[in-house]
Amino acid sequence: MESPKRIKSTLTYLKKLFIMPDSPDKFVEFGHELLELIHDFFQEKGGIHSSATLPELSKIFDQTSIPDSPLLIKDVLSEVRSKVINHSVKVGNPYYIGHMTSAIPYFNILLEMIIAALNQNQVKIETAKASSFVERELVAWLHSLIFNRKESYYRKNIHNPRVALGNVTSGGTLSNMTALMVAREKAFPPSGDFPGLRIAGTDKALQHYGYKRGVVIVSTRGHYSITKAANLLGIGESNVINIPVDSNNHIDIKKLRIRINAIQRELRNRKTKIIAIIGIAGTTETGNVDNLEALRDISSEVGAHFHVDACWGGPALLVDEYRSIFKGIEKADSVSIDAHKLLYCPISMGLVLFRSEKDLNLIRHTSRYVIRRNSVDTGRFTVEGSRPFACLKPWASLKIIGRKGYGLLFRHARESTDYLRSILDRCGNFETLNIPELFILNYRFIPEAVQEQLSVWRNIALSKKRNNIETAKRKIRKVNRLINGLNVKLHRELRRDDTTFVSRTTLESTRYRPQNIVVLRAVLINPLTDEKVLDEIVETQNRIGHQIWMEFESSYKKIRDESY
Amino acid sequence: MESPKRIKSTLTYLKKLFIMPDSPDKFVEFGHELLELIHDFFQEKGGIHSSATLPELSKIFDQTSIPDSPLLIKDVLSEVRSKVINHSVKVGNPYYIGHMTSAIPYFNILLEMIIAALNQNQVKIETAKASSFVERELVAWLHSLIFNRKESYYRKNIHNPRVALGNVTSGGTLSNMTALMVAREKAFPPSGDFPGLRIAGTDKALQHYGYKRGVVIVSTRGHYSITKAANLLGIGESNVINIPVDSNNHIDIKKLRIRINAIQRELRNRKTKIIAIIGIAGTTETGNVDNLEALRDISSEVGAHFHVDACWGGPALLVDEYRSIFKGIEKADSVSIDAHKLLYCPISMGLVLFRSEKDLNLIRHTSRYVIRRNSVDTGRFTVEGSRPFACLKPWASLKIIGRKGYGLLFRHARESTDYLRSILDRCGNFETLNIPELFILNYRFIPEAVQEQLSVWRNIALSKKRNNIETAKRKIRKVNRLINGLNVKLHRELRRDDTTFVSRTTLESTRYRPQNIVVLRAVLINPLTDEKVLDEIVETQNRIGHQIWMEFESSYKKIRDESY
Repeated sequence: MESPKRIKSTLTYLKKLFIMPDSPDKFVEFGHELLELIHDFFQEKGGIHSSATLPELSKIFDQTSIPDSPLLIKDVLSEVRSKVINHSVKVGNPYYIGHMTSAIPYFNILLEMIIAALNQNQVKIETAKASSFVERELVAWLHSLIFNRKESYYRKNIHNPRVALGNVTSGGTLSNMTALMVAREKAFPPSGDFPGLRIAGTDKALQHYGYKRGVVIVSTRGHYSITKAANLLGIGESNVINIPVDSNNHIDIKKLRIRINAIQRELRNRKTKIIAIIGIAGTTETGNVDNLEALRDISSEVGAHFHVDACWGGPALLVDEYRSIFKGIEKADSVSIDAHKLLYCPISMGLVLFRSEKDLNLIRHTSRYVIRRNSVDTGRFTVEGSRPFACLKPWASLKIIGRKGYGLLFRHARESTDYLRSILDRCGNFETLNIPELFILNYRFIPEAVQEQLSVWRNIALSKKRNNIETAKRKIRKVNRLINGLNVKLHRELRRDDTTFVSRTTLESTRYRPQNIVVLRAVLINPLTDEKVLDEIVETQNRIGHQIWMEFESSYKKIRDESY
Repeated sequence: MESPKRIKSTLTYLKKLFIMPDSPDKFVEFGHELLELIHDFFQEKGGIHSSATLPELSKIFDQTSIPDSPLLIKDVLSEVRSKVINHSVKVGNPYYIGHMTSAIPYFNILLEMIIAALNQNQVKIETAKASSFVERELVAWLHSLIFNRKESYYRKNIHNPRVALGNVTSGGTLSNMTALMVAREKAFPPSGDFPGLRIAGTDKALQHYGYKRGVVIVSTRGHYSITKAANLLGIGESNVINIPVDSNNHIDIKKLRIRINAIQRELRNRKTKIIAIIGIAGTTETGNVDNLEALRDISSEVGAHFHVDACWGGPALLVDEYRSIFKGIEKADSVSIDAHKLLYCPISMGLVLFRSEKDLNLIRHTSRYVIRRNSVDTGRFTVEGSRPFACLKPWASLKIIGRKGYGLLFRHARESTDYLRSILDRCGNFETLNIPELFILNYRFIPEAVQEQLSVWRNIALSKKRNNIETAKRKIRKVNRLINGLNVKLHRELRRDDTTFVSRTTLESTRYRPQNIVVLRAVLINPLTDEKVLDEIVETQNRIGHQIWMEFESSYKKIRDESY
């Protein structure tokens, strides 16, 4: 390869790099080249992750200081192709079914060009004109999708600069954080001499109201961003109370009530304030939706803010057949939803919507040089400052794909999930471990004979034969530990094979509860993943699973045959 | 105009929207059209903000619910052109010199295409392979730019998965927040039974260490994100202590020492913990840089984390002639820096760098399905979760523009600032109000005769003639209030004229301190803004300023002539 040419920099040369009326040729020329390059990347066959190992990549990206002399754009683009594009993860590949990051419609690439070319900064109307209105329109759309308030409500508030129906954020973590920030302020509002938590701090707020601590309640399936938010907000990670889930990964309402009763029975002068109860509408690991209606009732009873983390599942509300599983979401105080998941937009953009248009005023802030008090600037309500015109992507996607289109995409996702489940069951060497509601399936490789043996032991464990119960239970645990090891190894080998991809996690909420079970996790949202692809994925996993099983079989037989 | 065609959606149609090997034609076709469209936008003459009023825009974006039927991409792109692009702010226009959002080199548009097409999610190596290495390489570059540690240090840590030298964030607010989160954890670390603030919460942390409160110290020029962070982190906005600045907007070191002494003299059993002292390297309003070395010494003395907000000025470190004003930054504990400001990248991306590679481990978090404890995932260290491959933009910019290129851009920026100052001074009807260090100039319109009169009164006020001092002071205050109103009105009229753009703010730190003075604020970083453009801007402001002055003149004369 020719070595990149170092060029002599002049201001005249640099000026030409900037967008200006009289230098469009280069721009169009490179643009065309790049469109071909991107096109080639998706046509290329080969592994999902590229064969370069992490140590090899360390050597490719080993410059420890900033380049001195400028390089030609074409040389840097060529470097990007050989070093970056060639070693990127093909998340849009139909055989990649492991994460919520998947294929996106190509028009998003065009929209990104517009967003970058306009370079609007959403913080302020002076740096974002039409784009501020696009954002407010999108926020109203999703607010109405979730809360379904009257048309007159939206007419009044869609562009009312004194309020915000929600924020566009960089993603779910910021959305959840914003909701909890509002919840915290509502829990410790100004009263008398006390200026409110945001002014006085968490410690003074607890003191003023005579609370020992403030807590946030969510199921054990809660996203890790909740714990992160509790840390960030000064609530403390230990004040996130995780409630166990039922057999289908829904928060256990009975156990929630017991826990809340216990909290409320604590000594009167050392009370606990429940800042927020969080329902999950599409758990990250299993795709299940909490009983939002029950959570809403309990939140009302205890006077807590009710937040729904619908980052994953929210867009399913676009389709009538899914609305019933979200029942109660319309009464939530706040809901977060991601555009880069089921709205099929590029990474990353989230939204947080508030049922009451007054809520975001609790965290409103102003400054003298931007976002002045009496301005119409969006930045008054957001945690972030400078923000890109990212909302153009879901705004245009909702127009181009439409509710009907999303309906078709989600039907395909459900059918893919059902199909994968059916072929795993038919194969015999896999055990499925959740009942999917929203396109996520958990399962593991476990030879048919071992499954049957576990089933025999489970029947004994549930029986009345006192003698054998403990032995059966112990054997189940031992075999599960072995199968856990097998699936960790299988996952590693699948990564090495690199023709297919699923993720893995560990769940305590399977039929073997409370034992932790290592599971493979498939997220089935790529419309290009068809039955043939799924057949091949299962065939590959079964083949490699079998090979690994050879190493595990004797250990299994030892457990099976040993007597206590 | 033809009304957009509603189309019948089928899965086959939808699949074609997704990136796939056998449907590239449409993609390339639209790409070419769009390149022309973007090109046209920049060629178009006309106002900076478009002539549509906010109420008119409200009517354009007035849909309160999500579209049902899909529309053709070409129809939506045409809608984007007519509704959005036509009414966007031309932030890249050479006559737009009001904000830190400016022109960007066009290759960034190409990079955004690559970023969207790859759709990597930086949270995790399984969704971001080469891109994780690009990010770590960029972080090492900027770490070395700021902290300049030994080559062996970077060799060891650039790709060491157990540590992070810094984070890529969505922007300065998140960067400052991350730094303060680390500072807070360092201020209240685990000890004995106490598990550290992140686990126990702010209130328990203060209790355990016997502190009355924790504070963050920054000058009155501190960015509003500091207050926002104090709110978010549960420290409380009232615990941000703002220290006055000297006549050139640098934190007043003497007043800082006095304030710290006062804090330390407080009763022993109700101590105040100084969590962090923040230095500003490029104030948002005035572009000045604090005495970082003195701040660093004081931070050491009081045991506080020393953070530098270099979101604006940081990239000036690329150029040797600017390094001296940043002296001491190499000893900071953390530094934040934005890519979308002086690195000329699109909105938005920031970085926060930590001198000690161990610091980010204090806020490390893990989960079972992503960012496992023993993984190499970047997401373990970040506040945000899903993050785009935004780091490609500064990474490529630093290669294409190079240190030398940035040197030329900053030289042009400094020359533009100096030139603007010289023509404002020469005109006579403007008063410049700061000594710019980094490309930001504050000034106001004030007729020459009024300036001369103010000068006379200022001399009296500084003199020994007791009798007249109070009268002169009172007249200065009254005239300044009048001129404030004049400049607010001028700014509004300039917005209406819309051929040029500067921003405005209010400063207490001018020669009229402590009176608040309304100033126009010019940010001079667009390399396409040349002397001719600046001449025209000043000519316009002078002309419109004069027109408005007609309305104010009699009030001025009344103040001038009244006797007390």
